Amino acid sequence: MPAAAIVDQLAVRLSATLGSGGVSRGDDVLRAHGSDESWHPPAPPDIVVFPASVDEVVAVVSACRETGTPIVPFGAGTSLEGHIAALQGGVCVDLTRMNRILRVDVGDMDVTVEAGVTRKQLEARLLPEGVFFPVDPGADATIGGMVGTRASGTTAVRYGTMRENVVALTVVTAQGRILRTGSRARKSSAGYDLTRLFVGSEGTLGIVVEATLRIFPTPEAISAAVCSFPSVDAAVACVVDTIQIGIPMARIELLDEIEMDAVNRRSGLAYPVAPTLFLELHGSESGVAEQSAAAAEIAAEHGGSDFAWATTQEERTRLWHARHEGYEAVLALRPGTRGYVTDVCVPISRLAECMAETRRDIEEAGLFGPIVGHVGDGNFHVTFLVDPDADDEIRRVEEVTERMVRRAIEFGGTCTGEHGVGYGKTRYLELEHGDEAVQAMRSIKDALDPAGLMNPGKVLP
Amino acid sequence: MPAAAIVDQLAVRLSATLGSGGVSRGDDVLRAHGSDESWHPPAPPDIVVFPASVDEVVAVVSACRETGTPIVPFGAGTSLEGHIAALQGGVCVDLTRMNRILRVDVGDMDVTVEAGVTRKQLEARLLPEGVFFPVDPGADATIGGMVGTRASGTTAVRYGTMRENVVALTVVTAQGRILRTGSRARKSSAGYDLTRLFVGSEGTLGIVVEATLRIFPTPEAISAAVCSFPSVDAAVACVVDTIQIGIPMARIELLDEIEMDAVNRRSGLAYPVAPTLFLELHGSESGVAEQSAAAAEIAAEHGGSDFAWATTQEERTRLWHARHEGYEAVLALRPGTRGYVTDVCVPISRLAECMAETRRDIEEAGLFGPIVGHVGDGNFHVTFLVDPDADDEIRRVEEVTERMVRRAIEFGGTCTGEHGVGYGKTRYLELEHGDEAVQAMRSIKDALDPAGLMNPGKVLP
Repeated sequence: MPAAAIVDQLAVRLSATLGSGGVSRGDDVLRAHGSDESWHPPAPPDIVVFPASVDEVVAVVSACRETGTPIVPFGAGTSLEGHIAALQGGVCVDLTRMNRILRVDVGDMDVTVEAGVTRKQLEARLLPEGVFFPVDPGADATIGGMVGTRASGTTAVRYGTMRENVVALTVVTAQGRILRTGSRARKSSAGYDLTRLFVGSEGTLGIVVEATLRIFPTPEAISAAVCSFPSVDAAVACVVDTIQIGIPMARIELLDEIEMDAVNRRSGLAYPVAPTLFLELHGSESGVAEQSAAAAEIAAEHGGSDFAWATTQEERTRLWHARHEGYEAVLALRPGTRGYVTDVCVPISRLAECMAETRRDIEEAGLFGPIVGHVGDGNFHVTFLVDPDADDEIRRVEEVTERMVRRAIEFGGTCTGEHGVGYGKTRYLELEHGDEAVQAMRSIKDALDPAGLMNPGKVLP
Repeated sequence: MPAAAIVDQLAVRLSATLGSGGVSRGDDVLRAHGSDESWHPPAPPDIVVFPASVDEVVAVVSACRETGTPIVPFGAGTSLEGHIAALQGGVCVDLTRMNRILRVDVGDMDVTVEAGVTRKQLEARLLPEGVFFPVDPGADATIGGMVGTRASGTTAVRYGTMRENVVALTVVTAQGRILRTGSRARKSSAGYDLTRLFVGSEGTLGIVVEATLRIFPTPEAISAAVCSFPSVDAAVACVVDTIQIGIPMARIELLDEIEMDAVNRRSGLAYPVAPTLFLELHGSESGVAEQSAAAAEIAAEHGGSDFAWATTQEERTRLWHARHEGYEAVLALRPGTRGYVTDVCVPISRLAECMAETRRDIEEAGLFGPIVGHVGDGNFHVTFLVDPDADDEIRRVEEVTERMVRRAIEFGGTCTGEHGVGYGKTRYLELEHGDEAVQAMRSIKDALDPAGLMNPGKVLP
């Protein structure tokens, strides 16, 4: 933790640079900036700054560097593994004032935005242009935060994650210099892939201040559907067949029976209380119609109910609104509890087995945790509902989560499909990647941030 | 260059490990392993080794490390920027004995192969399974080489490059240890993206010995077509519209009139001698039919000739064979010359302009250089035909190439879309990426290969 005198001096210096409105040391502001939406203990920073330009970020990093002060970047605060906790105190760099959409190019199908632009803000700007940015993690996260955690969500099965959809980045380095990665070319073999190195680095290698992203033409036709299955196994088998045959699903979400019950209650719906797939197809009118029929046929082979295809915007909005409200719906099932969300991802051939063993664990531990999955990617979340005062319950949740992560890694998968490592999952990194890979990651961290000031305590164990 | 005595000792030691058949110092072998298909001066290694296993690669790297001997990995030798030239001598690690396909999984749609497996070998193995690996650089390169150069080719517009299609890697590090990157999960947010860091690193950070790759279901229907245009501008405008409207082209290749003339002569065809698009669509029967019609309509708007769609395997094979023979076809136009191939890539909105200015440069310099482009990606190649004895001609080719690269970078593009940096393009790296990014790349190189033994003189200036 920086000494109080250093913090005082730094605050004065930063106020001189950013103006007094650009710096805050108020208790509420500090507390809000040390907390995310996770279960992990929050840790407030000593100072929060609100830079409005790349140059102001440079000034902040330079000042921190000279005083040896840790730096934690902050977007919407919606991350789930303690990414923004200021574990060693220091300066939180809130990027939400850097929220300009700098360039929209429907010819080259790319946009450049400042890191503080939120997903929904970008969506609204792109809608009238007939294009969209596909990565949708649910929360209205900032693009900078989504770059940091290598976010994905419901559409990754078709459009990929942030890994595939970031074209180029502007980063303020640990040395307080401006580094640009990538060009606007769609592909390049010119040197090491720094863009992909910063995507998913969670602010530990530098602060992402601008991002160039791929966009896509809004499909001519979109069709969404809901289909229930006799078992999770049957639903997953349906997904595997769908992917093997090459139907280009835009979304394939699985909700288990508990989650469906919650969704019905929350949204006043009457879906069967059974494992259910929410699907979406994008394409031409006839293409979508043909693919819908093919998907329905595969579903029927696995005991799926009749598909109810929703082709109008209103129907689809209702359907996906219900899906996206899943988290709140689940929380409402057990008032007074808080959600504890897990995030493993496995090869799809092991998904049914992984979910079944997880379900058994949950039941044996006497816990309450519905499952929802981006099953086209092999990624699923358990939302444990936990009484914050029941230590024994928390312990059991942690045990089941630990087993789930170890199982996923054993099955050739990962401890986190899309939420990131933060400080909640650093202890799984060696188990997943092995000693040699983690050592290589640490060498890279030391090379780019030798003083260790960039979001310390995150990603690496 | 290692001293002769060290080379002698090392050869003895390596022979003891790999057997005498696993080590060669024959002149022809050394010469063949120091030359690629480029114009750059070759540089033979001192020793060539042919390891048959990961452990043997570890043994080779360890021996080289202890003696401070440079290490250059080698696949098919088809690279184009001097990647495999042993600029400081040392040991060439020929990976072609490591050519086992270790695992094919059509459930998870991935395969794991040793680095020496060639593209066509993999294609043949996957064909009966009803799946395919999409990255096709033309040459029958090894997968290891394609990983190293971040290769792509005609299908990148639909399926992406090696960047998108490598799931995980096994690498022998500069320390002679085995590092595994990635898991088999389709996505992950667990730590720095080492997989993408090694893809495109050209053997300068370690030796890729195994790769897990994505595969795709063979499309139900494939349709290919040829369409000629009044000008390169018109052809490119057609491509831009096609992409903007979201037609999922599997290939979009542009050949200029000189290239078409060459192709006609070589393959006994009678296509109009005009800028021409070679297209391919993948999907269901009706989907492909619908997209063909939409593409034809857009082409007609830009003055394109009637499409001749080839839907049978034989017709398509003939068509793409003609396209793939383009290089040989062009060489045949001026017997006694050698090809000098360039490789820029720009945002597609600047492509027509970039090609037009390049064409003007070529004419003004009195050079002969047909253009062929993966235009869906904004990537194109000029194949200069150069008399190896005409120094003045070589100088003019180099000048035009230099201008082409600078123009591409100025247009927001890259000095190499798919061939890589090798030692032929190191001098453009700072121009393209800026000082700060190149310094970051160098820090990473120093962190992972502190002794600088891994393919020295490549990638970094």
